[in-house]
Amino acid sequence: MNNLMNTLGQQSKKAAQQLSQLETARKNDCLMQMAQDLEDNAETILIANQRDLNQAKENGIPEPLIDRLRLTDERIQEMAEGIRQVAALADPIGVVEKMWQTEDQLMIGQQRVPLGVIGIIFESRPNVTTDAASLCFKSGNAVILRGGKEAFYSNQALVELMQRTLRNNELNSAMIQFVNDTSHDVANEMMRLNDYLDVLIPRGGAGLIQRVKNTATVPVIETGTGNNHVYVDSAAQLDMARDIVINAKAQRPSVCNAIETLLVHEDIASEFLPMIEKALASHEVSLRADSKALVYLEQADLAAEDDWATEFLDYVLAIKVVASIDDAIEHINHYNSKHSEAIVTDSYPNGQKFLKEVDAAAVYINASTRFTDGFKFGFGAEIGISTQKLHARGPMGLEHLTSSKYIIYGDGQIRE
Amino acid sequence: MNNLMNTLGQQSKKAAQQLSQLETARKNDCLMQMAQDLEDNAETILIANQRDLNQAKENGIPEPLIDRLRLTDERIQEMAEGIRQVAALADPIGVVEKMWQTEDQLMIGQQRVPLGVIGIIFESRPNVTTDAASLCFKSGNAVILRGGKEAFYSNQALVELMQRTLRNNELNSAMIQFVNDTSHDVANEMMRLNDYLDVLIPRGGAGLIQRVKNTATVPVIETGTGNNHVYVDSAAQLDMARDIVINAKAQRPSVCNAIETLLVHEDIASEFLPMIEKALASHEVSLRADSKALVYLEQADLAAEDDWATEFLDYVLAIKVVASIDDAIEHINHYNSKHSEAIVTDSYPNGQKFLKEVDAAAVYINASTRFTDGFKFGFGAEIGISTQKLHARGPMGLEHLTSSKYIIYGDGQIRE
Repeated sequence: MNNLMNTLGQQSKKAAQQLSQLETARKNDCLMQMAQDLEDNAETILIANQRDLNQAKENGIPEPLIDRLRLTDERIQEMAEGIRQVAALADPIGVVEKMWQTEDQLMIGQQRVPLGVIGIIFESRPNVTTDAASLCFKSGNAVILRGGKEAFYSNQALVELMQRTLRNNELNSAMIQFVNDTSHDVANEMMRLNDYLDVLIPRGGAGLIQRVKNTATVPVIETGTGNNHVYVDSAAQLDMARDIVINAKAQRPSVCNAIETLLVHEDIASEFLPMIEKALASHEVSLRADSKALVYLEQADLAAEDDWATEFLDYVLAIKVVASIDDAIEHINHYNSKHSEAIVTDSYPNGQKFLKEVDAAAVYINASTRFTDGFKFGFGAEIGISTQKLHARGPMGLEHLTSSKYIIYGDGQIRE
Repeated sequence: MNNLMNTLGQQSKKAAQQLSQLETARKNDCLMQMAQDLEDNAETILIANQRDLNQAKENGIPEPLIDRLRLTDERIQEMAEGIRQVAALADPIGVVEKMWQTEDQLMIGQQRVPLGVIGIIFESRPNVTTDAASLCFKSGNAVILRGGKEAFYSNQALVELMQRTLRNNELNSAMIQFVNDTSHDVANEMMRLNDYLDVLIPRGGAGLIQRVKNTATVPVIETGTGNNHVYVDSAAQLDMARDIVINAKAQRPSVCNAIETLLVHEDIASEFLPMIEKALASHEVSLRADSKALVYLEQADLAAEDDWATEFLDYVLAIKVVASIDDAIEHINHYNSKHSEAIVTDSYPNGQKFLKEVDAAAVYINASTRFTDGFKFGFGAEIGISTQKLHARGPMGLEHLTSSKYIIYGDGQIRE
């Protein structure tokens, strides 16, 4: 076992013990200070970020990806604002959700406690560093952050600043730790650090998620792959359906709650498909259609089997004509990644059937899948969107970064 | 990948889809019928069980273990009664725990749904077969059962009877499946059956749990290892402490909610230790004490470092004298398996401190740890006691065999 991960794990576990007992006010004060320190040290962050940008250019990384990496004064302010929003959220720790008296006259309460040490493996933009660290800290968990090599210097600078704030608040700086090594070997060791990590949350593309699933023995929460659908029923209002499809596909195609496939009932295909093709064309969305849909489309390619299973994350939409709502549900349950699914219909029974039978974290009637989001659900900032069924499903806020313990008040009870 | 596990997985996944949509009344009818069919076919079960018993004798298995394996008419009736109790529990599926309206006027409800396919790897008595199958069935989950080789024929006969009941009720018999191969290889394949298993629950000793943890890539819920403590505070009522220690250690030492170590505050050691030694002696409990405790004990051996970390599951108790409640909490948090911990004290602040700082699924003031149990908590039958922090912690009843989905009612909302 690598010395680095073991050392980080031990330090984090010890820090987690202190953090689990920290009062809400001290956590909030520290978060507000972190936000301030980020803004006050923007220069330091920008210098580190410039190293990442230079390296990215040397490595021939395409401009859109370089833009995702780039920090500016404004983006640093947004990160600080994100931390302040986390400070403003209610503290989930210590809440007793229910308490009851048993037949034996024991009083049993179920109390929220931190999970312990959370590992985050991510490959996205540097703002994940401050988002994840602040959510873990507020929910009483130590965090070990392992970012991608593209943003190494930016991530490192951000964590160093947050650690300095911790020390200035007389707290153990190991409450927020950074893995100073972006090799695959070290990542693999992190995925098997069962003695120290209570949970591992990967944030990134399907490749990362798959690698973590296959390698990790630490409990994992899968996040973020969204092969989502809108099904336009025969009883749909077609203008509502058009607006929802456009929004779900084209408003921001690179996010996990966008859709990848449109399913259209055959009874309305001849009317709806030309209408949606025109609307999508103005957003430069290219189409991959099955043979039935192709009949009604002018500019579409024939879809391959792979297209139904692909998360394009781009201005590409697969389209399929179905003979019934049952066919739509069967297609969705076969190909989807259990993230977000929507039906557009004015039929009450069809809407209810869709809600009941589709297997996904979030199932919508007459709304865009783009609402699957911690803020839009009313949870505040989110650590990710779980696509697994264990522990948490859908947008994960502070509450989903907690466990519980039963606290039991007796007066001498023994078991018969 | 082994053909057997893949085939079982595919069949179970399909069956799980049907089972997830089954009405409560049909599930209950089927469970009542299963109970009846078990009783009506007791002869068949006893014949299969005799094969296991014969084999156990040939292999020189000790008599207490053979007794755990043995089925009788009475034990079969108890198993049937257990299934009827599960039928009588409220169905968790379909419950909407909360529903709210968002800023965008979406109505969002969080609804309980089954997990999907649950794998159980167990090595205990045959009653686990019917307990686990009935709990999974009632909570809408397909189950794949892989029992130990000692009870192979008994487990197989029980599953075949339950499958026959399913078929008689025109249900897919793959809702309850049995792994017809007790090799380690097949078990390992089951632990990595990510395409079909939503969760894996091992039930058995520390060796099994450890093997599953190290091998599984399927999400696991750890259950059942209990290295538990009673701490007798300086402010304890000593007769209450004696009764709780006797109950927690000696009423049934082989179960996971029994204790393994007694911690005693030094101020009361000279009075309490001779008193508890006498009481434990009448239950033939042997003692392993640290050097400070040895001074007050007549028949104890010196404890080795290993003893603090050992789940004896036997009439053996480790004893340590501590200088303070802080030392007691530190010892517990270092050595315990996060299962059940108790303090005996009349001091209000010490009791509250213990509840707050001890890290375990269940923490008691003035009661025996033996109450950590689904029935005693009021949950009804349990599938096991989770000692991990993710998803479920402590006794797991029907509700803990579920996930949730967000159902969202809109009227055309799109995201700005």
